[in-house]
Amino acid sequence: MDQEYTSALLGRAVDEFAKLPGIGRKTAMRLVLHTLRMDESAVDGFCEAIARLRHEVRYCKVCHNISDTEVCALCASQQRDKTTICVVENVQDVMAIEATMQYRGMYHVLGGVISPMDGVGPGDLQIQSLVDRVEQGEDVKEVILALSSTMEGDTTNFFISRKLSAVLADESRGLKLTVLARGLSINDELQYTDEATLGRSLVNRVPFVA
Amino acid sequence: MDQEYTSALLGRAVDEFAKLPGIGRKTAMRLVLHTLRMDESAVDGFCEAIARLRHEVRYCKVCHNISDTEVCALCASQQRDKTTICVVENVQDVMAIEATMQYRGMYHVLGGVISPMDGVGPGDLQIQSLVDRVEQGEDVKEVILALSSTMEGDTTNFFISRKLSAVLADESRGLKLTVLARGLSINDELQYTDEATLGRSLVNRVPFVA
Repeated sequence: MDQEYTSALLGRAVDEFAKLPGIGRKTAMRLVLHTLRMDESAVDGFCEAIARLRHEVRYCKVCHNISDTEVCALCASQQRDKTTICVVENVQDVMAIEATMQYRGMYHVLGGVISPMDGVGPGDLQIQSLVDRVEQGEDVKEVILALSSTMEGDTTNFFISRKLSAVLADESRGLKLTVLARGLSINDELQYTDEATLGRSLVNRVPFVA
Repeated sequence: MDQEYTSALLGRAVDEFAKLPGIGRKTAMRLVLHTLRMDESAVDGFCEAIARLRHEVRYCKVCHNISDTEVCALCASQQRDKTTICVVENVQDVMAIEATMQYRGMYHVLGGVISPMDGVGPGDLQIQSLVDRVEQGEDVKEVILALSSTMEGDTTNFFISRKLSAVLADESRGLKLTVLARGLSINDELQYTDEATLGRSLVNRVPFVA
């Protein structure tokens, strides 16, 4: 950039905002000048909220969702159906599924999908803890695979089904492995799917065939 | 919003980002999750830059541009032409004009334009300090009005020309009042004008006629 700032403080604040994804230098400048029109206490509140989240963020030890406590509110709730675990990629996906009002079970947040191109292998995801959770939780009767309908999502579905094959083969256990109905268009990212489509695909989930 | 956050910290951080102009809740969520992937020190650096700017921001006592010091770098520079003052609305306009490389004089940042609809009167702007600066600065030979070509900008131009009428009437002083050439399309905001048009309009500035 050729732009010269008459204030180094201003320049640094613009640089910091411009590091965020999807924010260019003009937008960063507009946001910074907006903060100058805010009350000092409001700016402090903004900064404190961001810093506190980063420093104090915790992940639920059961489902790995972002949580303020050791076990998140969804996992601790007595209102939720403990027999079903819905496997998702990330926190936004939990919120997207909650917004459909079609699901009252538990979640398991993988933290991504298997993607050799991006260097993400099974060991980088919360897959083993899902397997442990299913193997040790006698009351779990269904695992719903709710990953994006991409090649990476399909690969991850396949990997999980293999990992669970022993439990699935145990007839007395009666565990079902299901996958979201492909009402989703292929290559759609789950978190951007409209609620009606996403709700329908949850209702129409079908047995998983590897 | 119907979205439930499993973490109050997360919800608060999203709320804070969503207060910024042009940032909706989905974008806010994306930005917040990005900060969770940043190093803690990088997040602290971000917050410190924003908070420091807000707490330590100063305005140049000569031109009212944002500055780290009592007199800004442009006003303190020996390289700039002290005989010309360019009157602009805000800090971005200074940067836009500097980017044209067509101007080497001084600036005066009004802090806005007269706009009765928005409750902005002449007393809310740095107009009196401009008049003082011109009246007391014998070496000032030209004042360039570089406001947006909107009705509010025109009104402000007219108001300033009236305020300077006594100095302008003094033939021995030889002060010129000029205005940017209307190479700008009518109703364009100055800060979003392309550099070529803005540079051309600076070169072709013409005597002000009220």
